[in-house]
Amino acid sequence: MTQTIQRVAIVGAGMIGASWAALATAHGLDVSAYDPAPEAEVKFRAHVERARAQLAELGLIGTGNIAFSADLAATLSGVQFVQENGPENEAVKRELLARIDAGSPPDAIIASSTSALVRSAIVADCANPARIIVAHPFNPPHLVPLVEIVGEDEAVVARAAAFYRELGRRPVILNREMPGHIANRLASALYREAVHLVEQGVASVSEIDAALCNGPGLRWALMGPHMTYHLGGGEGGIAGYLAHLGPSQVRRWQALGNPGLGEEVQRAIIAGVAEEAAGRSIAELEMRRDEGLLALLKSRKLVSE
Amino acid sequence: MTQTIQRVAIVGAGMIGASWAALATAHGLDVSAYDPAPEAEVKFRAHVERARAQLAELGLIGTGNIAFSADLAATLSGVQFVQENGPENEAVKRELLARIDAGSPPDAIIASSTSALVRSAIVADCANPARIIVAHPFNPPHLVPLVEIVGEDEAVVARAAAFYRELGRRPVILNREMPGHIANRLASALYREAVHLVEQGVASVSEIDAALCNGPGLRWALMGPHMTYHLGGGEGGIAGYLAHLGPSQVRRWQALGNPGLGEEVQRAIIAGVAEEAAGRSIAELEMRRDEGLLALLKSRKLVSE
Repeated sequence: MTQTIQRVAIVGAGMIGASWAALATAHGLDVSAYDPAPEAEVKFRAHVERARAQLAELGLIGTGNIAFSADLAATLSGVQFVQENGPENEAVKRELLARIDAGSPPDAIIASSTSALVRSAIVADCANPARIIVAHPFNPPHLVPLVEIVGEDEAVVARAAAFYRELGRRPVILNREMPGHIANRLASALYREAVHLVEQGVASVSEIDAALCNGPGLRWALMGPHMTYHLGGGEGGIAGYLAHLGPSQVRRWQALGNPGLGEEVQRAIIAGVAEEAAGRSIAELEMRRDEGLLALLKSRKLVSE
Repeated sequence: MTQTIQRVAIVGAGMIGASWAALATAHGLDVSAYDPAPEAEVKFRAHVERARAQLAELGLIGTGNIAFSADLAATLSGVQFVQENGPENEAVKRELLARIDAGSPPDAIIASSTSALVRSAIVADCANPARIIVAHPFNPPHLVPLVEIVGEDEAVVARAAAFYRELGRRPVILNREMPGHIANRLASALYREAVHLVEQGVASVSEIDAALCNGPGLRWALMGPHMTYHLGGGEGGIAGYLAHLGPSQVRRWQALGNPGLGEEVQRAIIAGVAEEAAGRSIAELEMRRDEGLLALLKSRKLVSE
């Protein structure tokens, strides 16, 4: 059953699909990409080229080929792995995964990049759900290592995780499905309080952003929240932390905000982000982000792994 | 009124005080440190030495002097700035700040490192509260740039912020006091959901930690949550994000967990952290964290500033 993965199908060739394609080809794998949208190929190839240039800075200079097609059957032919990146719509994804399942070689693993949907809902129409996993990357997927994996067959999950490790990713395996998986739930919880602080006028948007990236965010690039509190507990570690500061942590939880996203706070956020962007376009900011990520990835020494 | 800061008093010479002292002397300032605890000086000087060695790696090799005393009046004599790092107990800190206020030169700014207390409570017994601010650093303060500032006199806040910038810090100014300031509130909000995911058995402690530091944490070392969603909105930026994905963000907020820290989840967290630590001691993990922070600080290219 276990076969070497040499050819990967990318189904849905937007930004996420193009990042996956860049990553695979930079590791020497061949890619067949599918997207039915007109002009999808031009944008796709341009994004792959930009991403490949960034990966080359990390020393990833494999020379996998890319074939592009608007024919799904041709795209799936002869692949050992499929990464699906279709629209985030349950009905659309369910139907697309059923078509991919029907058209893929029987041994191929099929992975959905879905961020917002849960696996049980989107595999519902598939004949062979055991080979279908959720494998959610984080934007931009060719740079950010995280891939969150949800599956039902342990052997399939293990093979997929090994494959992502070969691509330099950090697969994180969930024991069971959860809307938003792990990382987007953590991000959402943090954002709720960030919005609360804007709503309450505690600080400006740019000061709140600066507090994160010059404080806890810097540490969280190296280690997760549990390890952080382990090192916040002094010689007693996490046990000491929970014993001495657990009650004050729970009291703080009770005092966190529960804001909405009404018009007034939306206006404050939009104005605050404009002030923080200081005239820089989205494209400029993305370029800066990617330069920043490349620099961190080259230098990073993890505490959590 | 505005005078050059050449001598800084460090009141309370534990780990936080020692980090402040290392930072000040590495920038060429003289320090007078006070702590009434027996053997405080030996531990203090050892920690200052370790921190100075790390700061030297960042090119900070100033040669400020350190005087240590168990006499508060002697410590405060002739200083232009006081950084207080006493116990996190409201009554103790209120009394200590009143003594510092009474004993400091009239032009000196007095800053409290308090993380858990609010300014209005701890300045209550001071004769000159206008010159007293909260200036909360993030552990370890000689490496992590964030300093959260709360004050009542804009000129004092501006002078303090300028001073911290000279020390290579990123002062973040709050418009008003808030328990937990900004960063610990954001961290607490995220941790609540991390504990919820442990409680629900969604993934192991080490997998949850890995999801953060290989995903959103990596990006948050470069930019804050608002800027992150600005870049998650595609060409429409944050306005597009809020218009299209705001409702799903609010739905996710409603689905976040509300765990306690009961015995069962504490046991799971402690066991999970032990597995993640893999036999490494707190001291080893701290050394690894500091090496990691130094590497990030040398290479970092911020998006938020």
